[in-house]
Amino acid sequence: MPLPAELIQRKRDGEELEADELTELVLSYTEGTVPDYQMAAFLMAVYFRGLSHAETFALTDAMIRSGETLDLGAALGRKVVDKHSTGGVGDKTSLAVGPIVAACGVPFGKMSGRGLGHTGGTLDKLESIPGYQVELPLDRFVAQVRDVGLAIVGQTADLVPADKKLYALRDVTATVDNVSLIAASIMSKKLAGGADAIVLDVKVGDGAFMKTAEDARALAGEMIELGRRAGREVVCLLTDMDQPLGSAVGNALEVHEAVATVRGEGPADFAELVLGACAHLLALSDLGVDLAGGRARAEAAVADGSALDAYERWIRAQGGDPDEAALPVAPIVRPVTADAGGYVSSLGAIAIGRAALRLGAGRRTKEDTIDHAVGIRCLAKRGDRVEPGEPWAEVHARDVVAAATAVAEVRAAYTVEDEPPPERPLLLDVLES
Amino acid sequence: MPLPAELIQRKRDGEELEADELTELVLSYTEGTVPDYQMAAFLMAVYFRGLSHAETFALTDAMIRSGETLDLGAALGRKVVDKHSTGGVGDKTSLAVGPIVAACGVPFGKMSGRGLGHTGGTLDKLESIPGYQVELPLDRFVAQVRDVGLAIVGQTADLVPADKKLYALRDVTATVDNVSLIAASIMSKKLAGGADAIVLDVKVGDGAFMKTAEDARALAGEMIELGRRAGREVVCLLTDMDQPLGSAVGNALEVHEAVATVRGEGPADFAELVLGACAHLLALSDLGVDLAGGRARAEAAVADGSALDAYERWIRAQGGDPDEAALPVAPIVRPVTADAGGYVSSLGAIAIGRAALRLGAGRRTKEDTIDHAVGIRCLAKRGDRVEPGEPWAEVHARDVVAAATAVAEVRAAYTVEDEPPPERPLLLDVLES
Repeated sequence: MPLPAELIQRKRDGEELEADELTELVLSYTEGTVPDYQMAAFLMAVYFRGLSHAETFALTDAMIRSGETLDLGAALGRKVVDKHSTGGVGDKTSLAVGPIVAACGVPFGKMSGRGLGHTGGTLDKLESIPGYQVELPLDRFVAQVRDVGLAIVGQTADLVPADKKLYALRDVTATVDNVSLIAASIMSKKLAGGADAIVLDVKVGDGAFMKTAEDARALAGEMIELGRRAGREVVCLLTDMDQPLGSAVGNALEVHEAVATVRGEGPADFAELVLGACAHLLALSDLGVDLAGGRARAEAAVADGSALDAYERWIRAQGGDPDEAALPVAPIVRPVTADAGGYVSSLGAIAIGRAALRLGAGRRTKEDTIDHAVGIRCLAKRGDRVEPGEPWAEVHARDVVAAATAVAEVRAAYTVEDEPPPERPLLLDVLES
Repeated sequence: MPLPAELIQRKRDGEELEADELTELVLSYTEGTVPDYQMAAFLMAVYFRGLSHAETFALTDAMIRSGETLDLGAALGRKVVDKHSTGGVGDKTSLAVGPIVAACGVPFGKMSGRGLGHTGGTLDKLESIPGYQVELPLDRFVAQVRDVGLAIVGQTADLVPADKKLYALRDVTATVDNVSLIAASIMSKKLAGGADAIVLDVKVGDGAFMKTAEDARALAGEMIELGRRAGREVVCLLTDMDQPLGSAVGNALEVHEAVATVRGEGPADFAELVLGACAHLLALSDLGVDLAGGRARAEAAVADGSALDAYERWIRAQGGDPDEAALPVAPIVRPVTADAGGYVSSLGAIAIGRAALRLGAGRRTKEDTIDHAVGIRCLAKRGDRVEPGEPWAEVHARDVVAAATAVAEVRAAYTVEDEPPPERPLLLDVLES
């Protein structure tokens, strides 16, 4: 292989690198023979010069080859479907999608991450549930997906170790914001985990990583292309993240809302996204149904209680207590009331996320611990009519000082106008390979 | 200070950083609290976004503040002049300039570097001289400049340690080629060494770091601006490096040529550059002469033998044997003869440099040792008339195999045409603050 400095220079100068050059660079980096400082310079050159589709695929492939892979399909004798969300404020989709899909007879085994900033990740939300074990050995994970139909665990260090190392480096070198690098990070984990078909939820807006529809479409396009090159089916939902998803923001509050949605009692916007995602997953699965058929099955599983049964079986299988009464409760709950009447024209996702973070629902640094009980419930959403004195939201806090701060922050996140805002659907677009 | 990652991001996004932010970044990096990987990402962002004059000055100033400084002027009670060349093939200018300037009564104390690639640096050339000590403690260096009028030593680690650390990092992360970073590296050392006035020789062409006059002017402009901001006088010579400077390329051969030039018997192009540089240095010094006066003094010092005396005093003061017969001699000397008659239209500097490197005159890696005896003498230069069978050059080699390879390489470096090429002067321009 050319020296790493030569590869950095060629990328810096806008050249397209060969697949085997990228493979060797990534594998040498994972092994530690290419040092962090050369990879950091390379990543910054990639930030400015970009990667071609072929380079992005080679990078993704090299990242997969940096560790073990899981052939979940062979282990289950089934076609494997998976979902991934790029994350946003109040995004508890997997917690509701998993049980519904499993109840429809499609195995759902997912490896998730923790959150940094705003609110927790899927694992943090699940750890609100007393007893829930996020760390399972790979063989127990596979066994649970086979026997219970559903497991959500932490990303094992055995799969895609390159991603873990690269992500930690990108995080401290201002090289996170690049579509190719983000796509490679997400898709390497999905592909290494053995997914045959993947539903991706790319969030766009104020509270999402992708601030504009253009950026979100670019990321979706890159991930669909990576799936195509790897021979996997990919469906990409572009969904709104200008306001929080659903009502609940904060770990235990989000578990409550996910369970309510599994029971058919969730907030309309979130329930719609969950059922839509389930419909796509079922249509991609080996059930042999189309999108409408998938939707009907998902709705039936909610209506007949089988989705709730699947939820309870899953939580118990992972050592948790599925009783909602077991979830932690914040000692202070304060309403945020409307100053004046009108229509909610905007509800800043990032402002709500930051208020939740300050309450203790998220992490500023990797070392921070999360307070699972605290958070915010947004009772009024964009387009809702509110009357003076009516509660807009609820703040769930550890103490009165934190509550008072959050009440002011949540109030400031709302804008109310006399006329209703133009409608903006939650599901902005669906892109497919 | 903002977190390093934030500074990287702001530079990545094209922002101008504050002086105190750059200072803290550079000092923290030198101390080791900012890791190499963050600095590498920062340097690559600088490569793409550049640095403003104010940022480059702040960087230079921070680099100076990373270590000790030397007030040579106060120690000598004199105005201190210094010179620096950006380097090229056959550049032994300091070895001839030093004795001439010293003979004119102007103290000349210079810290030089070693070479990587092509041929050695000034220190490597001086180490051809049996006994010459390049490492002197700072107090002995100052004493020798005061007592002997001339000293050339290795860069001490006490001055500008940030440069040493940054340069090593840039070398392996493809972030060397940036005008601001190059200017800061050169000028930080000159300013920390206490120079009141500086003559810079910026080489331009095939065998130089700066390949185009435009790039060379940009670098010269940046260094003049840094000098202006630091309150120092700077004169910048732009000189041709499309062919080797003088005839000799290789360490002991270059010492011979420098001594010949001090005696008034050097090749015309090299002697002209040396006298020109001396004239500028003397005009900037406290002698109170103008450029023409400086030139006359320099010529006189060569003609009356006082420059040669100064050379011998200097070499003896540093433990060396000034007798040219003491210099190492290569066992094999082979002529390179002209195939056909005509005018030399080009003589590739980089090709000659590489041939000398392969003979052993330079280093490929920091660990390589130099063979001081080997090298090439280019007898015919651009514009010279050659006849078939006449020697173009001489190869000085360790063995016959290396000699044969070099003969072929040197022959290939020459292009001969029927008509003389357009004249291209060695001194392309003089820029001043």
